[in-house]
Amino acid sequence: MSDDSNLTPDAARRGRKPSEEKREALIASALALFAERGVDGTATREIAARALTTERTLFKHFGSKQGLVQAVVETVSFEMMQQAAYARMREPVLFTRQAFAEWHRAFLIDRIAAARAAPDTYRVLLQELLRDRAFGTRYGARWRETVFAPLVGHLAAMQAAGMIGPGQSAEALAGAFFSLNLGYLVSRFALGADPFGAAWADDRDVQAIVTLFQATCG
Amino acid sequence: MSDDSNLTPDAARRGRKPSEEKREALIASALALFAERGVDGTATREIAARALTTERTLFKHFGSKQGLVQAVVETVSFEMMQQAAYARMREPVLFTRQAFAEWHRAFLIDRIAAARAAPDTYRVLLQELLRDRAFGTRYGARWRETVFAPLVGHLAAMQAAGMIGPGQSAEALAGAFFSLNLGYLVSRFALGADPFGAAWADDRDVQAIVTLFQATCG
Repeated sequence: MSDDSNLTPDAARRGRKPSEEKREALIASALALFAERGVDGTATREIAARALTTERTLFKHFGSKQGLVQAVVETVSFEMMQQAAYARMREPVLFTRQAFAEWHRAFLIDRIAAARAAPDTYRVLLQELLRDRAFGTRYGARWRETVFAPLVGHLAAMQAAGMIGPGQSAEALAGAFFSLNLGYLVSRFALGADPFGAAWADDRDVQAIVTLFQATCG
Repeated sequence: MSDDSNLTPDAARRGRKPSEEKREALIASALALFAERGVDGTATREIAARALTTERTLFKHFGSKQGLVQAVVETVSFEMMQQAAYARMREPVLFTRQAFAEWHRAFLIDRIAAARAAPDTYRVLLQELLRDRAFGTRYGARWRETVFAPLVGHLAAMQAAGMIGPGQSAEALAGAFFSLNLGYLVSRFALGADPFGAAWADDRDVQAIVTLFQATCG
């Protein structure tokens, strides 16, 4: 029984999309609207309209608005880990200290641009990670495998090559790398806290974080 | 018109508490139950029963379960900043590097113990900070004043005394201090992520964070 079985012949003639495409259109539409207005400020009716479908189809696919939020966050978070900013991590080519600092800088600039383009994404992603422990576990496992472990590998290789001091384990350094980045991005884009009591400044802030991590590496 | 105006003479004779005490008892009861079972796993009926009052009184004070959650989080977060672990921050006595490292260690051990005693507190606090921007703003202002600014003062004084290298601003170092701590506590107690793919270990983890921050100070 087709997903479109409930459509009138008239609607079917207008060329409604098949089910999987509709699901993707709904996720894309929800993501755009959540980013613009936040989850609470977005009605399922608007999401459906923007995806050129009906609320009925939305609920058929996702059960509830919360179900749609989960699907959106799951999609966004896994796509995030596949983005260009992470690609260098997965290349098994030794970094120099300088090349690593440059990659770190580019990585942060990319993450800030992504967060600015969709200021609600971090907030919604974090909220879902906190709310839905099963999602947190899946996300954590994927993150360890695709992001954290490769970074540990690079830092360990740099340490073996004598480019980083032996004082701390590569795991601890990788943990510090993510804490510094996460602490900044969460403070700025999710919590909206401004510890400096002044405007955020991309270049100055990125420079400070890159320098801090370099100092951490000894 | 007293808060107890709706009580029967019989109830009044049993010595019901006045309003403010009831409010505090409800907050304490909610905090204990949220910590044990999470917000979703706790019914307002149970919270009221533990506070030796009624659901009706609970709703009179807080409007809704969400209103109670907000009141609990507000209380907890402001109390948190007044705790012993932060007291040394507000003493205008110069730290040595060694004394600072020892304070940092004690601070982390205290924060881990507090998070372990109430594993849901961080999660609920973060969720509320993400959900309620007005609360985030109030919390941020208070945090800057009572925690961040004093830390910046101490780091700047240590820098002026030549105990910390001049390479980074005291603000950036203080930001790194909180990112490292927050990244660890959030990963461990709110997200439940385990980047190391192994059990968390208090002593090893605290040592790693203290050492990382010391390295960051140059």
